[in-house]
Amino acid sequence: MEFSSKLLENAVNEMSQLPGIGKRTALRLVLHLLRQPEHQTFQLSEALSKVRAEINFCESCHSISDKALCEICENPLRNKEMICVVEDIRDVMAIENTSSYKGLYHVLGGKISPMDGIGPQDLNITSLVEKVKKGEVKELIFAMSPTMEGDTTNFYIFRQIQDYHVATSTIARGVAAGNELEYTDEITLGRSIIDRIPFEASLKS
Amino acid sequence: MEFSSKLLENAVNEMSQLPGIGKRTALRLVLHLLRQPEHQTFQLSEALSKVRAEINFCESCHSISDKALCEICENPLRNKEMICVVEDIRDVMAIENTSSYKGLYHVLGGKISPMDGIGPQDLNITSLVEKVKKGEVKELIFAMSPTMEGDTTNFYIFRQIQDYHVATSTIARGVAAGNELEYTDEITLGRSIIDRIPFEASLKS
Ligand SMILES: [Zn+2]
Ligand SMILES: [Zn+2]
Repeated sequence: MEFSSKLLENAVNEMSQLPGIGKRTALRLVLHLLRQPEHQTFQLSEALSKVRAEINFCESCHSISDKALCEICENPLRNKEMICVVEDIRDVMAIENTSSYKGLYHVLGGKISPMDGIGPQDLNITSLVEKVKKGEVKELIFAMSPTMEGDTTNFYIFRQIQDYHVATSTIARGVAAGNELEYTDEITLGRSIIDRIPFEASLKS
Repeated sequence: MEFSSKLLENAVNEMSQLPGIGKRTALRLVLHLLRQPEHQTFQLSEALSKVRAEINFCESCHSISDKALCEICENPLRNKEMICVVEDIRDVMAIENTSSYKGLYHVLGGKISPMDGIGPQDLNITSLVEKVKKGEVKELIFAMSPTMEGDTTNFYIFRQIQDYHVATSTIARGVAAGNELEYTDEITLGRSIIDRIPFEASLKS
């Protein structure tokens, strides 16, 4: 693509770094912004740089939070003996949306994926194992997406904590294998938490 | 969507103002940025606000340009007696890409679309008519997308300039009716400029 303006070219190039946004789509989006009042672009620009600069993760569950402890970890009504292990904050949002879970979460920040060069050391696993070792947790619910990477991640964590006194379960596989958790409808997802099964039993199925 | 962070919510809301970007996609894009090095977000943010703040339009053809006159208008080798009338800069880029046109352009900045509340006064039509009135232009080539709005726009301009000495043509309709110009392959588009027909003849077909 030959651009008549360096400024435009630069904006299109940066925009097309985003996943799923090609050069053509990026150009369409930037031209759209140029047709809108200036403040729309400035607000977008400001919101992006602000969230990136000031992003904070809950020091307990690693969810995105504007405070040291997120609202869920801080809530005295939540059951602190139960921890639901998820891949990212979208899964927390999806499960919270079902209103069927009253325990805490632990956000791993991804899943083990050798293909993408993501190993256990890249995820928030150590702090989860520490929580278990301290004996404060009665049950861990693995709520990773039911994909090969999700299963690998569950199993890796399971092996780290299997010698400690903690019950483990996975959410019931009402979800079709290979599907992303966040695209599951609320009812199926809510049900799958209620129907969770012991993790060891899930290995046999 | 319930967010655990105002900063995150704000960024997602701003991102989802973009056409074709829903809340879910916006969240995915923002989470992607949060996983990348900070400088990626800052460069995107900076590039967007900079292009919006410093955007300049060529004072002759209204194309996006970093200088007062764009490279095409400034180029002494271009035929200044021929003006190709297009909807937006993407069409200039598409036609330039065919290397089959050596005249100038006039970027209207949209098309007449009563449904979207866009009338002739919202487009760069007056300055085009002025150019014709000055007698400097020998031929106007209408190269709008062959849609109803494109046809309406062509006809509106045609009526403004029909009493002056200027030849008018439309690009040959090798392009399937209803298709956007920018998605037309280079060969068809290049050919359609070479095969252009007098505008009045196009009304009869
Ligand atoms: Zn938390
Ligand atoms: Zn120009």
